[in-house]
Amino acid sequence: MQQPDNNLGQLIQDLESDQVAGIRKTLTSLNPPEIARLLESLTVGKRKIIWQLVDQEDEGEILKELVDDVRQNLIEEMDASELIAVTQDMELDDLADLLIDIPEAITEQIITALDQQDQVRLESVMSFEENTAGGLTNPRIVSVRRGITIEVLIRYLRKLRKLPEDTNYIYIINKHNEYLGAVKLVDLFVEDKGKNIEDIMDESVKPFTAETDSHQVSLDFQDLDIISAPVVDDQNKLLGQITIDDVVDVIQDQANSEIFNMAGLDDEDDIFAPVLVSSKRRAVWLGMNLVTAFIVAGAVGLFKEILGQIVILAVLMPIVASMGGVAGNQTLILVIRGIATKKIQRSNAIKLLIKEGSVALLNGLTWSIVVSVLAVVLFQTPWNIGYIIGAAMLLNILASAIAGVSIPFLLKKVGIDPALAGGVMMTTLTDVLGFITFLGLATLFLLE
Amino acid sequence: MQQPDNNLGQLIQDLESDQVAGIRKTLTSLNPPEIARLLESLTVGKRKIIWQLVDQEDEGEILKELVDDVRQNLIEEMDASELIAVTQDMELDDLADLLIDIPEAITEQIITALDQQDQVRLESVMSFEENTAGGLTNPRIVSVRRGITIEVLIRYLRKLRKLPEDTNYIYIINKHNEYLGAVKLVDLFVEDKGKNIEDIMDESVKPFTAETDSHQVSLDFQDLDIISAPVVDDQNKLLGQITIDDVVDVIQDQANSEIFNMAGLDDEDDIFAPVLVSSKRRAVWLGMNLVTAFIVAGAVGLFKEILGQIVILAVLMPIVASMGGVAGNQTLILVIRGIATKKIQRSNAIKLLIKEGSVALLNGLTWSIVVSVLAVVLFQTPWNIGYIIGAAMLLNILASAIAGVSIPFLLKKVGIDPALAGGVMMTTLTDVLGFITFLGLATLFLLE
Repeated sequence: MQQPDNNLGQLIQDLESDQVAGIRKTLTSLNPPEIARLLESLTVGKRKIIWQLVDQEDEGEILKELVDDVRQNLIEEMDASELIAVTQDMELDDLADLLIDIPEAITEQIITALDQQDQVRLESVMSFEENTAGGLTNPRIVSVRRGITIEVLIRYLRKLRKLPEDTNYIYIINKHNEYLGAVKLVDLFVEDKGKNIEDIMDESVKPFTAETDSHQVSLDFQDLDIISAPVVDDQNKLLGQITIDDVVDVIQDQANSEIFNMAGLDDEDDIFAPVLVSSKRRAVWLGMNLVTAFIVAGAVGLFKEILGQIVILAVLMPIVASMGGVAGNQTLILVIRGIATKKIQRSNAIKLLIKEGSVALLNGLTWSIVVSVLAVVLFQTPWNIGYIIGAAMLLNILASAIAGVSIPFLLKKVGIDPALAGGVMMTTLTDVLGFITFLGLATLFLLE
Repeated sequence: MQQPDNNLGQLIQDLESDQVAGIRKTLTSLNPPEIARLLESLTVGKRKIIWQLVDQEDEGEILKELVDDVRQNLIEEMDASELIAVTQDMELDDLADLLIDIPEAITEQIITALDQQDQVRLESVMSFEENTAGGLTNPRIVSVRRGITIEVLIRYLRKLRKLPEDTNYIYIINKHNEYLGAVKLVDLFVEDKGKNIEDIMDESVKPFTAETDSHQVSLDFQDLDIISAPVVDDQNKLLGQITIDDVVDVIQDQANSEIFNMAGLDDEDDIFAPVLVSSKRRAVWLGMNLVTAFIVAGAVGLFKEILGQIVILAVLMPIVASMGGVAGNQTLILVIRGIATKKIQRSNAIKLLIKEGSVALLNGLTWSIVVSVLAVVLFQTPWNIGYIIGAAMLLNILASAIAGVSIPFLLKKVGIDPALAGGVMMTTLTDVLGFITFLGLATLFLLE
């Protein structure tokens, strides 16, 4: 398979030397997701040039794969007729997602251009939130009424001439379109042709209701090792199916956004967004951190007197804060991931707290002794400062373990994403606590 | 579908009140990956009790899903006969992974218990690294020689009585077992039965060579939206196929390990590992960070004179370091993720550096002014200290943007995982630089 690494380099080179033929050659050798990735890897100006050269047939698939930011960017470049042409062959669930970014006037035209049946189907998909099973549902499936034999079913399939791309199951419904079960395509080859289709239904294929959260859908797909599953509404009427490719996107997006959120970034942003746009987005996060930084400075400011007397305290104090932060962050990430994968829940949180607390105690003791000794040896501090830094560090590491388990649960309870705010809270806490315990103990025992 | 949240609570409750019947009831209502997750959510003692109560039929599937640490833990509890019984029905690629954790003496017995064909197949799977296409390959597929008609193929399938679970393609080979192409199962229903199977081959199904890195495999699966793909050796001989469920595991593991690595954790560790084991593992990371913390303290120590003269510098210095760290971390995570998803490569790194540098300049300027003013207003510092903190912060944020783009490429070049070491390097750098620029400028302009 193609190495996109070379493609990007090739493309940029061709762009800079105006080799349109070379660009076209690279583009035709790639599939839509690869082109999408290339587009995201380019600056806005270059991106627009390439977009003009992309085969129109691929445009729908490419738009689907792009991050929101870049997609909007390119849609703005397209006129109504182009957008209509591009969207007519898309999967309806993908189309539903795309329509959100398209101006309303054009949306209407796109929908009218669909055939009657697809219009109805699209409406049903669009009635569900993007991050639910309903929003992931592709309504183009093969469903048949109960009561026919395998032979009749096979004859029916042959008449259809073309089955939807992702057909793994034939879904069985009753006359009210209520879901009854699914027949695996493979089984049609090996089972006795005279059998009724209901007799070879795969009992393990359970439908999702349309409101199910897409994260739950992705967990269930992984648990059940399935590649497609039917979706029903709250009256058990069959709406369509979810296929694994969309679930893979959910998994990938979830991981992506968790990592990005930790740094206050949005995974749907354009890497090469204009400087002003990027700066504005990042500014919020920096501003939030500025507030916490001033809180930390305020805490240090309480101890000006002792700092004025013993300068070495200012030198050593970052050590206490940083070790607490590192230890706390380990617990925090363990717990955030554990909650996301449902391995950590309220019912085992206390046990985990005990375990993490014990680990913190043991490591806190060990490293406190090391730090005490090193402070005395490396910085020639008197032993009493050594004792104080050790004690402060032990306290800070212990507190950070408790915070690491509690913060994610607290944030979840008040409806804030722990991955987004957990790190900031942890850092602020361990900084404030580290400085206060260290300088506080020093004030208590050393202030003259 | 079942809510594992209630299951864990129920299970712990039943365990504590010795309700074996209740435990069995919960277990039978769950599928193996759900049980695996439950086991990982329990402390070591409880886990062992539950493991005794698990249906032996499910044990293989459960072992496959567990993180390495917990798997080893449970395998130690099992005797040879149990292990042999459990492993006989496993997929061969999963069995190959499992055998790594099993004592060699028992491994031999397990292999001997397989039938002749599976022994040969297992050997071929085991000859590849776990993280390659070969390691993901399941050799149980349906392949047929070229030159037959669809009708003959269908008759052959019917004779097999049972097709492997994940059959989506029938693979076509020549008499030397060289891969020629694949026929989609769906197409057998709609194409003319008299056609030769080579005429309906799906050209888009390209084989992976066994040495392909599993990360590349996962990218290609996502790019091509496929659910299975053939795997060949370097002589184009068909070895088996990779199915999407294993690819989903690769994607999930990759995301998991990236997040865990950022905090110096291992995603294959047991959440409830014994305190001593956990402490030892975390100690390495804490020790590494201690070294960097002392480097930072050493940097601050260079400026004892000015710190002794102007106490407010000690109060304000954490602000400079922390804002640089936050800004740098944003760039760092953007780049690390970008490299992992192949959106950022050498060929667009310079453009990104310019963009991130510009963002840093703009945000650096903005926030430097804010910090200058706030320092004067909130801490009553003279204006010259305000100017100095502003200048130091601007420099630090600029440097952190450059480091954020460069560090991942540097680490990759020397073969270190950027997610693992990037954060520590960034924090050390922004701390050292923040303190040095701030205190250095103060020494230069304010020291009496």
